[in-house]
Amino acid sequence: MASKVLQTNYDVDYVIIYRVPKVDKAAATAQFQKLIRTLTETGLTTEVRRGDETSLLVFVRISDEKIFSNVVYRSRIKDWLYGIRQIQPSGDPGQTLSSEPLTDAERHRHVHHMICFPREEGGAGITPKHGEWDNVEAVFPLHDHAQNKKWLTEFSRKTFLNPEDLDEIRNTVGEKIAYYYAFLQTYFSFLIFPAAFGFSCWVLLGNFSAIYAVVNGLWCVVFVEYWKRQEQELAIRWGVKHVSAIQAKRREFVPEKITTDHITGEKVAYFPAKKRLLRQLLQIPLALLCVIALGTVICTCYAIEIFLSEVYDGPLKSVLVFTPTIILTLAVPAISNYLTQFAEKLTFYENYETHEAHDRAMISKVFVINFITSYTAIFLTSFVYVPFASLLVPYLDIFSLTVKPFAENEKQLQTPSAASFTIDPNRLRNQMIYFAVTAQIVNFAMETVLPIVTQKGTKKYKEMQSSRAEKNGGAAPSVSANDPPEEKEFLTRVREEAALPDYDVTSDLREMCIQFGYLSLFSVIWPLTPVSYFFNNWVELRGDTFKLTVECRRPTPTRADSIGPWLDSLEFLAWLGSITTAALVYMFSGGNGPDGKPHTIKLAALLLSVFLSEHIFLVVRLLVRSAIGKLDSAAMRKERSERFMVRKKFLEEAGLADVIKPITTGPNSPLQDESGAQAFTEITRETLEDDARRDSLSSSNPTDRFWKRQHNWAETEKVGVGLIDLMDLGSSTTKKKQ
Amino acid sequence: MASKVLQTNYDVDYVIIYRVPKVDKAAATAQFQKLIRTLTETGLTTEVRRGDETSLLVFVRISDEKIFSNVVYRSRIKDWLYGIRQIQPSGDPGQTLSSEPLTDAERHRHVHHMICFPREEGGAGITPKHGEWDNVEAVFPLHDHAQNKKWLTEFSRKTFLNPEDLDEIRNTVGEKIAYYYAFLQTYFSFLIFPAAFGFSCWVLLGNFSAIYAVVNGLWCVVFVEYWKRQEQELAIRWGVKHVSAIQAKRREFVPEKITTDHITGEKVAYFPAKKRLLRQLLQIPLALLCVIALGTVICTCYAIEIFLSEVYDGPLKSVLVFTPTIILTLAVPAISNYLTQFAEKLTFYENYETHEAHDRAMISKVFVINFITSYTAIFLTSFVYVPFASLLVPYLDIFSLTVKPFAENEKQLQTPSAASFTIDPNRLRNQMIYFAVTAQIVNFAMETVLPIVTQKGTKKYKEMQSSRAEKNGGAAPSVSANDPPEEKEFLTRVREEAALPDYDVTSDLREMCIQFGYLSLFSVIWPLTPVSYFFNNWVELRGDTFKLTVECRRPTPTRADSIGPWLDSLEFLAWLGSITTAALVYMFSGGNGPDGKPHTIKLAALLLSVFLSEHIFLVVRLLVRSAIGKLDSAAMRKERSERFMVRKKFLEEAGLADVIKPITTGPNSPLQDESGAQAFTEITRETLEDDARRDSLSSSNPTDRFWKRQHNWAETEKVGVGLIDLMDLGSSTTKKKQ
Repeated sequence: MASKVLQTNYDVDYVIIYRVPKVDKAAATAQFQKLIRTLTETGLTTEVRRGDETSLLVFVRISDEKIFSNVVYRSRIKDWLYGIRQIQPSGDPGQTLSSEPLTDAERHRHVHHMICFPREEGGAGITPKHGEWDNVEAVFPLHDHAQNKKWLTEFSRKTFLNPEDLDEIRNTVGEKIAYYYAFLQTYFSFLIFPAAFGFSCWVLLGNFSAIYAVVNGLWCVVFVEYWKRQEQELAIRWGVKHVSAIQAKRREFVPEKITTDHITGEKVAYFPAKKRLLRQLLQIPLALLCVIALGTVICTCYAIEIFLSEVYDGPLKSVLVFTPTIILTLAVPAISNYLTQFAEKLTFYENYETHEAHDRAMISKVFVINFITSYTAIFLTSFVYVPFASLLVPYLDIFSLTVKPFAENEKQLQTPSAASFTIDPNRLRNQMIYFAVTAQIVNFAMETVLPIVTQKGTKKYKEMQSSRAEKNGGAAPSVSANDPPEEKEFLTRVREEAALPDYDVTSDLREMCIQFGYLSLFSVIWPLTPVSYFFNNWVELRGDTFKLTVECRRPTPTRADSIGPWLDSLEFLAWLGSITTAALVYMFSGGNGPDGKPHTIKLAALLLSVFLSEHIFLVVRLLVRSAIGKLDSAAMRKERSERFMVRKKFLEEAGLADVIKPITTGPNSPLQDESGAQAFTEITRETLEDDARRDSLSSSNPTDRFWKRQHNWAETEKVGVGLIDLMDLGSSTTKKKQ
Repeated sequence: MASKVLQTNYDVDYVIIYRVPKVDKAAATAQFQKLIRTLTETGLTTEVRRGDETSLLVFVRISDEKIFSNVVYRSRIKDWLYGIRQIQPSGDPGQTLSSEPLTDAERHRHVHHMICFPREEGGAGITPKHGEWDNVEAVFPLHDHAQNKKWLTEFSRKTFLNPEDLDEIRNTVGEKIAYYYAFLQTYFSFLIFPAAFGFSCWVLLGNFSAIYAVVNGLWCVVFVEYWKRQEQELAIRWGVKHVSAIQAKRREFVPEKITTDHITGEKVAYFPAKKRLLRQLLQIPLALLCVIALGTVICTCYAIEIFLSEVYDGPLKSVLVFTPTIILTLAVPAISNYLTQFAEKLTFYENYETHEAHDRAMISKVFVINFITSYTAIFLTSFVYVPFASLLVPYLDIFSLTVKPFAENEKQLQTPSAASFTIDPNRLRNQMIYFAVTAQIVNFAMETVLPIVTQKGTKKYKEMQSSRAEKNGGAAPSVSANDPPEEKEFLTRVREEAALPDYDVTSDLREMCIQFGYLSLFSVIWPLTPVSYFFNNWVELRGDTFKLTVECRRPTPTRADSIGPWLDSLEFLAWLGSITTAALVYMFSGGNGPDGKPHTIKLAALLLSVFLSEHIFLVVRLLVRSAIGKLDSAAMRKERSERFMVRKKFLEEAGLADVIKPITTGPNSPLQDESGAQAFTEITRETLEDDARRDSLSSSNPTDRFWKRQHNWAETEKVGVGLIDLMDLGSSTTKKKQ
């Protein structure tokens, strides 16, 4: 992989996969021709090569730097008008690229705009898999393998990424993904504290300690508020503050009617907000469906598990014990997938105008589904099983009916009495250990290890297949048969990249949020949880880098000024944590009684501790928020300075000095009136009479007369001083003088 | 009052009261001279007249319209750079006043800037009662009596103000006060609903009905969220959105050190945030002091009252019953005032840089003090007296010790036994009626009626005094002795205005917030509360107008885009209401038992209902907030259109068309390459060989070779079509062709 050829991408900006469908070659051909022509009109050069068996690869690059300069210039003007940049772009579009060179990510973003933006906004209007471009399967840039290799080696050596590393990520794959890395890094750094504290608590205090709960809650609040602040700092550093004001319109948006705005003359697609509100109300049945479906499956499996492991003592026990685990492993992801697809259809039906609104709605549904899948089991254990099991277990003998046919022995089927049932006190803790350690390892394997194994396996299989077909003769020529020799390696690499899936940063963020939820809600059950997550996240960051660079196509860079709706999820989980942690500590910290049941739970005391915990949490959050808000920082100072410089430059150009210099003596001083030297004339009877005559001749306007009683500032001063002298502040002597 | 003279203010822009202190006339004279000179340097004309016995009145107006144009122009540039205005001010400062004429409020605001802004920002730097201008007592504009009269008559006729009325208020006294009126108007309109509903509930369901509680809570949420939206709409309508970004620096700010910003070169006054944070922590002891001081007084009076009215049966009962009321009426305002002054000192000590931060800190302290004064009594009654009285009352006989000396009869002093004590079931309701009706009337009298009576009384007294002094001979000449005859009435009017207090919109807002608090927290006790408030607020608006126009000086217009920190108070009160209302309904809705005590209160049930109520409130608030956020409006459309027009104009000026027109056939079409007609050449073996030869001769760059395999778009198209034909989508026939 070290050959020079692999280091170059032949200046290819973007690659378009054109998939030819089985039917109607003529239509496919026509669409292809249209594709080439449209791209060329927009100012892009194309080259076509064979892709895999049923696709073509269209390589795209900028044909005319001048057109591209214009595109970049207009984008920067738009940024400036939306307040994203303070500094006005220089007036000459031709100098755009030289005055502020583009990073890789920015270049890709602009080329992507040229390919995908609607015709009205100056793009080619290519909408993959939609409408008139349904054969266009994907539009993606090529990996920079040198950079990727550098990252993988560097990150494996370091423990902490520094801001320059994050800048590099941002310059290569865009802000949205860079935000994920920044979040992961901040989360990882913050985890040091609860890891250390949790370890000491586990050693010294055991599980369910109130001290750990308090410190954990405080940590959650400080982390979330600190991250919010960090987001803003990064937004200023990367110049993307307020970027969410620019919202990209969705092509899939179906307006009810199109009106013409009478002020601006542009066409406005209109969909009534009330209609959408009604459609959004469908989320309530969806949420209920989620709860019922997933909840039922999980509850049932749970009940079966308890029955089998603690009550049942019959045939096939060693095998049947795994039944619920198998059911869960198969059913829950399947139901989860089905619900996610249903959620996606519903989000499409809700018909959002912009990508951001659509994503936001989708993420909130995904969060609900994941919340239920991830936390229901442990909720059940803590709040249903342990407190109430001795009441519910006798009802579990319904399961013994299903096992009757297998019974080898009558005795095995005796319904256990309530007395012989004992609660397993470690069930909760074991479950938590599973989520903190085992589940993370399994996830990592599924997410990072499995795809690469699959890819390599598929590749090997195909090679074996084609070599076998060659041996048998009459094989179909491979797609690379007609490659020019010097491009062979390059094209093979591109074909491999084209076959990879797209990278979705949302799923990684989701994973981290759910993990944070476990920390916030349940880590008081087993204080070593943050230790496990600390190690896991170190591996996670490197694994995600591996996934991004090797297992997925290079993503199209997107700008963002936040991790988005996941921030609301974090806040919600921190809040919910204050409630569940208080409840858990109250219920379990007294130690367990002889029958495994916790000490008598009084509802009043439980509610009181929850009430206090929640409200103290809210007050602390308010205090932390205001304290962090008051801290100044380099980025804020930079922002203020920029604004000041912009203003100064503008005023200078407008010909106004920034400061009125006090002019006291020179010419044009306001302290001198028209008759310069007469500023300090004496006020005598004669001059007064002169003034009176002059006034009566000139104007008869009361306003003017009012203002002429003291001709200039010197007279005003003199009269005033006289009045002050006259003032009867202590004595009663008076003098008449005007 | 209808004479023409009173209709004119002689074009006076501002009036400065210069108070001469008793000691050191020389220093006073020097400061006066400096005042006149500084004002003149800034571009203002002055006239001085005698004020009252120890003051001078300095009348100020713009001397040079050109200087004023510059000031207005710079202010508009600042607005534009801070994003408050979308439209760039026209390039020529001279046209400022003609292109966008100023309203009265704007004119006054700019003149005020010229008088009071620091020298570095182009003002005269006059800081009343502070530093080097400590003799300057006040700086204020004169009332427009014609406008005032018009308002008073119009408002008495109307019930509802329309947006044009609010615009007029804004054009005369500025946005901050206009926001108060807008808030009052919205609040008044919204009150119709709970008034009607409360009336029906009172008739049909009685007190403490759960239905009323639910509807009331919902109303509170909708009102607050609607008002937040209304604020934004008004901000767009009045062009003051984001105006809180411009923060006026305080002259009283004492920096720790002054550094020079290395980027901008301006001097930055620095006060470490951590130091301020420590000073702010002093608020905690202050809050505790408030609670203890006011709480103790109120509790003691309360206990005395209960003792006297329900337990005590001894001498002087009819007189002593009023003791607690007297103590409260005297002590609470006194303690309240003392605490407010202490809060003000503390806020000064916290040393804020800007007026906005200072006001915000002050308002939060004022809110805490008022919260305790207003709600403690009724909190005690609902949550201490009624539930626990029979336990606490026997401890009240401590008071009988103080009455012993007055005892006429031994029997009167017998400690009542617990059995003979009965809880007055109507105490709570009567207290609520007091707050809803009586307190409002008393407040109105104190706020609006009392000052005017005092003013007129003082005026009459002074007249009597001076006429008596004249009769006795040797009187000191009155201040108006030397007035020019035609200015006599005007100057008398100005002297009267100068003697009036300043108008403070904060106290009016505070009043309305506290009233809203009663509605939200306690109105379930007596559902006619909103009815009473409805009528009260109609009177309140007119009373406040009267106060503003007759009983106070004309205020300096200030810009604002919100009612400020009171909005947070409203949100907090709405939230707290969800808790207290649930508690009240639970405790009292079961009806009272025979001994006046409510049915057995179970702590668990109480906490559960509070828990549910609070969280349902939060969910509802979230839903209402998102629903309101989605509604579009005329103001929002206006904002979007403005931005679009600005962008369009800018792009046109830069020479870029907004849209790339698709050029397909004409000259310069990208679809034609250099050798125009050769765009559709045939690809034959000969041409390919030619190309190969040409390529090998020209460049040996792999990148160029990559991109030259298909010379232009037509070749790309052709090659691609060929590849599609070749595709083995169903059959196994192959053809080699490149």
